[in-house]
Amino acid sequence: MAQLLSSSACFDGHVNKYQHTSAVLGCDMRFTAFLPTHAGAGHTRVPAIFFLSGLTCNEDNFISKSGAPMFAAKHGIALICPDTSPRGVKCKDDTATWDFGEGASYYVDATTDEYKQHYQMHTYVADELFHLVTHFLPIDPSRISVMGHSVGGHGALTVGLHHASKFRCISVFAPMSSAPNCPWGVKALTNLLGPDRDLWARYDAAYLVRTYSGPRKMEILVDQGTNDQFLRDQLHTRMLVDAASENAKNVSFSYRLRAGYDHGYFYVASFVGEHVEWHAKRLV
Amino acid sequence: MAQLLSSSACFDGHVNKYQHTSAVLGCDMRFTAFLPTHAGAGHTRVPAIFFLSGLTCNEDNFISKSGAPMFAAKHGIALICPDTSPRGVKCKDDTATWDFGEGASYYVDATTDEYKQHYQMHTYVADELFHLVTHFLPIDPSRISVMGHSVGGHGALTVGLHHASKFRCISVFAPMSSAPNCPWGVKALTNLLGPDRDLWARYDAAYLVRTYSGPRKMEILVDQGTNDQFLRDQLHTRMLVDAASENAKNVSFSYRLRAGYDHGYFYVASFVGEHVEWHAKRLV
Repeated sequence: MAQLLSSSACFDGHVNKYQHTSAVLGCDMRFTAFLPTHAGAGHTRVPAIFFLSGLTCNEDNFISKSGAPMFAAKHGIALICPDTSPRGVKCKDDTATWDFGEGASYYVDATTDEYKQHYQMHTYVADELFHLVTHFLPIDPSRISVMGHSVGGHGALTVGLHHASKFRCISVFAPMSSAPNCPWGVKALTNLLGPDRDLWARYDAAYLVRTYSGPRKMEILVDQGTNDQFLRDQLHTRMLVDAASENAKNVSFSYRLRAGYDHGYFYVASFVGEHVEWHAKRLV
Repeated sequence: MAQLLSSSACFDGHVNKYQHTSAVLGCDMRFTAFLPTHAGAGHTRVPAIFFLSGLTCNEDNFISKSGAPMFAAKHGIALICPDTSPRGVKCKDDTATWDFGEGASYYVDATTDEYKQHYQMHTYVADELFHLVTHFLPIDPSRISVMGHSVGGHGALTVGLHHASKFRCISVFAPMSSAPNCPWGVKALTNLLGPDRDLWARYDAAYLVRTYSGPRKMEILVDQGTNDQFLRDQLHTRMLVDAASENAKNVSFSYRLRAGYDHGYFYVASFVGEHVEWHAKRLV
C-alpha cells in the first residue's frame, strides 16, 4: 500500500503524490501519478504510461514540466512517474556526483557489495511499482507502456525490452543509447555491476534492441533533437537506429529527429503530445 | 540592452533567458521570454502577454510549469516573464521570510527608507521592462496585455489598471484581491510604504477595479479554484467580483470558478489555454 501525500485537480483528473516503503530498495520511495477523471469511477481501470526520468530528476520533473497531463487526460490515460533512485540510503559515494547515485541510478539491479542492498531500480520499476500501481490504483495491468527521457530513456528501453509481457510499447526522448558505450554508463555500470563487461549487456539498450526476440514485435519510438548538448558524447542515438535496422523482424522502430531542439524539458514538452497520442493508439 | 543567457527551441519558437542591469531596481535582473517562430522574421513584431508570478517564484516558474508556450505558439503571441523582486540587494529583512522581500516584492514602488532604493517593481515592470522588450525584442508595443497568478495576479491588476494605455487586458489566476485587506499585503505594504494606510490605495487591486475610469473600458478575466488553500485568508477573490459589479461602466469583468482546483500550477496549467485564447482575441 502507498500513502497519499497530496492530490491536486488537473485537467479534470488528479495529480497525486504517493509514498510507500519499498521492500526491493529497502527505503521509502515517492512517485507521482496523473489519474484521468474517469479512473476508478464505476470500477473503471485505465491504461497507463510509466515515465522514467533522467539524471538529477525525481518524481516531480515530468509531471510538472512536460505538459503531458493535458494529453493524458484527453486520451484517458494515467501517468506513473517514479523517482530515479533509492533515497537517503547512504551507499558509497552515492551523493558525491550528480551523474551517479542518488537521482542517477540508471535503472539497474546492482550486484556489487557497495550497492546491491539498495540499488535495485530495474526490479523496483518492473515488478514492485508495477504491482503496486496495478493493485492499489485503478490501472489496467494489460494496457501499460513505458516512456523515458535521457538516462530514463535508456531505462525505458531496458525495462520495456526485458519485460515485454508487461509493457506494450516504448517511446523515448533523447535517450542514452548504450550504457557500456558512454562515460555516464561506464561509470554507473562499473559501480553497480563491477568491472566485468560481460555482465553489462543486460543493461545495454542498443544491444537489447539488436537481440530482442520477445513474445511479440516490440514497437519503439525514438525522438531526438539535433542541438542536444549530450548527443555526441553520451547519447549516440544513432546506435539505436543501427540496432533496430538489424532486428527489423522483432522490432518496429520509428525515429523522429527534431531540428534545432536541445536536451531539456522545453524540447520534451514540444513533442510529448505526439508521444502520448502514439501510446494511446496502442493502449486505448 | 539585455544579455541572452540561454535559448531553447520550444514549439517551433524559442524560450530565451535574458539578464540586464536594471536602473530602476539598482541590480541585475533576469527574465524569460517565449518568442513564437515568426517573431522577428521579416521585421514581424508579435503581441505579448506579460506574466507576473506569485510568492517565492522567479522568471522560470510560469514558463516551465504552466504549459503556456504551446498555446502562445498556436496564437503567435510572445510571453514575457519577469522575476518577482530585486535580487541580492540586501535590504532589511528581505530574505528573512518567504512571504516578503526577495521573491515577494508585491509589484510595489517602495517609499520607506529601508526599501525605496531597490524595491521599485511596479515601475520596473510597467516602464523599464516594457521599454526593454518592446525595443530589444520583436514585440509590438501596441498589443500587450498582462496576466498573473496569486500575488502576481494582484500585481497584474495594479500594473494593468494604472497603465491601461500600455496593457490591453488583464487576466488572473487565484489573485490576491486587495493587499490592504489580507495578512500578506498588510505585511508587505507596511514595510514598503509605511504605516499610513491612505498611501496604500495605489496598490489595492479591488479599490482600483472599483474606481478605474481609464481611457477605455478595461477587460478583466478572473479565475479561481474552489479548493484554493489561500482563498479564505489571503485572496478574498469575491472582493474583485463586488468591486467590478460597482464599476460595470468602466470594467468588463468575467469570473470563472473552477470546482475542486487548488492554488498550484496543476490548476494554472489546466486553464492557461483558455486564458491565452482570451488574450489572443484581444491582441491578435
